[in-house]
Amino acid sequence: MDDDRRNQLLATYRDGLLNDVLPFWTRHAVDREHGGFLTSLDRDGTVVDTDKSLWPQGRFAWLLGELYNSVEPREEWLELARHGVEFLDRHAVDPVDGRMWFAVTRDGRPLRKRRYAFTESFAAIAYGEYAQATGRDEYAAKAEAAFRRFVEHGTTFRDPSPKWTDTRPTAGLGGPMITIVTASELRDSIGLEDADALIDEAIETIRTKHVNADLRCVLETVSPEGEPIDSFDGRTLNPGHAIEGAWFTMKEGRRRGDNALVQLGLTMLDWTWKRGWDAEHGGMLYFTSTDGRPVQEYWHDMKFWWPHNEAIIATLLAYTLTGDSKYAAWHALVHDWAHERFADPEHGEWFGYLHRDGTPSSSLKGNWWKGPFHLPRMQLECWRLLAEPSPAWRH
Amino acid sequence: MDDDRRNQLLATYRDGLLNDVLPFWTRHAVDREHGGFLTSLDRDGTVVDTDKSLWPQGRFAWLLGELYNSVEPREEWLELARHGVEFLDRHAVDPVDGRMWFAVTRDGRPLRKRRYAFTESFAAIAYGEYAQATGRDEYAAKAEAAFRRFVEHGTTFRDPSPKWTDTRPTAGLGGPMITIVTASELRDSIGLEDADALIDEAIETIRTKHVNADLRCVLETVSPEGEPIDSFDGRTLNPGHAIEGAWFTMKEGRRRGDNALVQLGLTMLDWTWKRGWDAEHGGMLYFTSTDGRPVQEYWHDMKFWWPHNEAIIATLLAYTLTGDSKYAAWHALVHDWAHERFADPEHGEWFGYLHRDGTPSSSLKGNWWKGPFHLPRMQLECWRLLAEPSPAWRH
Repeated sequence: MDDDRRNQLLATYRDGLLNDVLPFWTRHAVDREHGGFLTSLDRDGTVVDTDKSLWPQGRFAWLLGELYNSVEPREEWLELARHGVEFLDRHAVDPVDGRMWFAVTRDGRPLRKRRYAFTESFAAIAYGEYAQATGRDEYAAKAEAAFRRFVEHGTTFRDPSPKWTDTRPTAGLGGPMITIVTASELRDSIGLEDADALIDEAIETIRTKHVNADLRCVLETVSPEGEPIDSFDGRTLNPGHAIEGAWFTMKEGRRRGDNALVQLGLTMLDWTWKRGWDAEHGGMLYFTSTDGRPVQEYWHDMKFWWPHNEAIIATLLAYTLTGDSKYAAWHALVHDWAHERFADPEHGEWFGYLHRDGTPSSSLKGNWWKGPFHLPRMQLECWRLLAEPSPAWRH
Repeated sequence: MDDDRRNQLLATYRDGLLNDVLPFWTRHAVDREHGGFLTSLDRDGTVVDTDKSLWPQGRFAWLLGELYNSVEPREEWLELARHGVEFLDRHAVDPVDGRMWFAVTRDGRPLRKRRYAFTESFAAIAYGEYAQATGRDEYAAKAEAAFRRFVEHGTTFRDPSPKWTDTRPTAGLGGPMITIVTASELRDSIGLEDADALIDEAIETIRTKHVNADLRCVLETVSPEGEPIDSFDGRTLNPGHAIEGAWFTMKEGRRRGDNALVQLGLTMLDWTWKRGWDAEHGGMLYFTSTDGRPVQEYWHDMKFWWPHNEAIIATLLAYTLTGDSKYAAWHALVHDWAHERFADPEHGEWFGYLHRDGTPSSSLKGNWWKGPFHLPRMQLECWRLLAEPSPAWRH
């Protein structure tokens, strides 16, 4: 990659983050009446649903705190981060069982709790950045407590009316994958002491149970022992998740100077790219299968924004780590395909949902799942990668 | 509609049912090793998943019994109906709480139970036809018991870990709609005594709570008092469901000679057609919204087979009841659009899932939800409609 391309990309990510994506959300999503963020926004930022999903409350507060801590200490960002964490403080936790809700009404009355505990993981990283930004120890404690609840949920939670019986127990990639990134964030923000050990354990789970050398893929759902399951769910691959796990693993390897971890992440990326990239229409398929047999999820061949964000990071990181032109080519493919189709030149930000052929399916900029997270995190990660020294840069 | 068109359509439905759709399932879906039916089939009938969803066990057994009772007493159909109901006998019910499972393994070990009780409704109609076919009273009792459980579930079931809190209670169209058709089937098969009263009550619920004159639509999800809810879910319309409810209501009106019921069904069809028919690409959209704002379900603009089956029945029934050429035109539109795109001339039966533009999304002929039900029921209903006298037939 030559300097021109590098500088051009760096500007695309940095300016996209600071002048497009972040202003879209700070302008439209901040609820000054009831606190927190309204993330269900139509193309032009109009609020289409006032319920508050709690994932994006934590994720946006994390982003604002991260920007304050690592880009520049803008008072506006800190104020908005506080706006988010204070909504979590007031409305996230069900006092009956101490677990966090998944969604609440605009004024914070509980609507839905889920069987998993990802709200806790996103609240943890929000609290962590806020603790770092303000030096307030009680927020470091809140960050750690939310993270412990997330980690322990996976091993101790017993649903009184489980969705599935114990006939065919499964283990998912999401738990260990989110453990890596959450522990990593808290290591930086609050100095989480056992972060390395938890990351080691999570990567080991992924390496031994989900990364399957026989099938040459990263299995999303396996038996608790890591065996493939011959069913719709067992054969269903989630390329976005696998590629997200790939760059978390590469990044940890880079930080530690551990080439085996880097290689593991590269392998996860290589195998997943071959299965997930749509050779016919371009873009990353939402689901594929281990053996080409059809999967059952209706939206399997749609193109969602976030797997493209994750693939843009992963390919650029792989390129900076290896200098292998294959990764630069993949990065250019997915960067260009996504920016040409998801980006909205008229109102800013990205659409979230395209048909397989790349035509738009929905005008939504945000909903209960899409908020200010995958896209701005990509812009921030890639901006950093391009600003750092790398053997891949040719001068 | 002239005699040529009428005869041509009649042959399409009758021959499609008897020579294409039914043989596809009797050839590929019958599990002679473990009993019951394997409905997760690829394009050519290859089994892609051996888990047994219980809805299609009951639905296929109902179809076979219905054909035996109303078309001709073929021994093969009765034997296969017995094959289905005996699998339900052995594996459908959880002895712990008496509720039926949603899915079991190939050999009948429980996998999943759901918060609703539609397995019970489909088991009920299967048992009912089998009771009628064999004269065995114990199956009439099983049919009625399963139906009572379905009806009572809606009012008495309290989930120990509910998916939603009580902050914003909702009522769905599915319960009363399935009550109409299930009670109607059991009225015919086992002489269910309070069928008329239950149907009256269900139609009254739909009329007063879901059919909304201000918005001119059939609301899928309302408050328990029948008020619209201004949220993603409250604004999301399900045209397939609304049109299914429309023809159930018209058919009941025709049976009773009750013109007000016929008119209610016609209104439901008229309003829903305008909102659900895709003016750009043709076909019936899976979800639309009350006010044009985007909905949240990813597959909202996909074309599924079953809403087209329901629309083909509803428009043909509306035409036979009114002679209004508008309905003949709508029927021709949806019949042609669907047969040109869903039908598989190579291996028979219909694909289930198309993109908005009508191109195929999946090669599956069946899965946990798609089985031998909506399509053959449409073929049987339309065959009957065309064989009966109607003021709409021009000679």
